[in-house]
Amino acid sequence: MTILANVLSTPIGIVRSEFKSKVGVPIQTAGAPRFGAELEVLPAYAAGLRDLEGFEYLIFLTHMHLVSEERLQVVPFLDTVSHGVFATRAPNRPNRIGLSIVRLLSIDGTTLRFEGNDMIDGTPVLDIKPYVPAFDIRQTERIGWFAGKRAKLPGARSDDRMR
Amino acid sequence: MTILANVLSTPIGIVRSEFKSKVGVPIQTAGAPRFGAELEVLPAYAAGLRDLEGFEYLIFLTHMHLVSEERLQVVPFLDTVSHGVFATRAPNRPNRIGLSIVRLLSIDGTTLRFEGNDMIDGTPVLDIKPYVPAFDIRQTERIGWFAGKRAKLPGARSDDRMR
Repeated sequence: MTILANVLSTPIGIVRSEFKSKVGVPIQTAGAPRFGAELEVLPAYAAGLRDLEGFEYLIFLTHMHLVSEERLQVVPFLDTVSHGVFATRAPNRPNRIGLSIVRLLSIDGTTLRFEGNDMIDGTPVLDIKPYVPAFDIRQTERIGWFAGKRAKLPGARSDDRMR
Repeated sequence: MTILANVLSTPIGIVRSEFKSKVGVPIQTAGAPRFGAELEVLPAYAAGLRDLEGFEYLIFLTHMHLVSEERLQVVPFLDTVSHGVFATRAPNRPNRIGLSIVRLLSIDGTTLRFEGNDMIDGTPVLDIKPYVPAFDIRQTERIGWFAGKRAKLPGARSDDRMR
C-alpha cells in the first residue's frame, strides 16, 4: 500500500463576499458573472501580485472552510442522483479544495476586486493562477452526467444538501 | 492583520510518470498532449471514482513535491524576465499546488490512464475534478506577459531554474 505524507498549506489571502452561509450561493462562477467580491491578499505575499493586472481571468484555489463532511458519493446540486464525488464539483470532497475562475476588475494594493463569485465570506485562498486560454481551454462534448444539465446552471444556487 | 489557520491535506493518489526529475518535463499539459501516464488512486477513495469514465478531461490538483523553494518573484520557463509568482504558472509558488488538465483514456479499478502529462513521478494528487466546458472555458485576449510567448509552448520543457 502506498504511503503518502500529508501536506500543509498556508492561506495567502481571504475572500470578502456577500455570501455568509453555505445556502443560496451560486454553484459555479460561470453561473454568477455579475456577483462582485474581493480577495484580500496577506501583506506578506504582496510581491507575488506583480504583473497580475495584465490578466482578465484568474483561477483561485481555495479551502472550502465551511464544509464539514467529506463524502465519496454525493448528489450534486445540478442532479437528483448520486455520483462519485470526483465526477462532480461538489464541495464535500476530500481535501475540500475549491476552484473558482473569476474576472479581475482591479487591484488596489493587496485588494483584488473581481466578478464571478461563488465563494463564501471568509474563504481562505491557497493559490492564484492566471487563466491562459492556451493552457486551460479544452473543447469536449464528453461531459458525463452534466450532459443535459447545462441549462440548469445559470442562476443555480446551493441548497442545504451539503454539510 | 488577518490570521488564517493552516490547512492540512491528505493525498488521494499518486502519479506514475516517465519524468523522474524537475528538468526536462513539459511545462503544461497543453504542451504535452502525447505523453501518457497513470494516476494510482488510493483504495480508500475508490468509491469517489464512480461515473468519472464519462468525462474526457479531468483537472488534477497536485502537490508539487520536488519543489523546495517557494518564491514570490520568478522568471518563468517561457520568459527571460521576472514576474510576481501569482502572475505565472511556475512551480515555485506558495503552497506548491499544481493544476494539470489531462485527457482520460481508461479507468481500471483505481488506476487512471491519461495523456497530457506534465507531472513528475511520485507527484501526490489532492483532488480530481471533471473538466466541464460550461464551467471552465473563458475566452480572453488579456493574458498579460504570456502574449507573444504562446508560440514557445508546444514542446517547451523545464530547465534547472526552479529549485
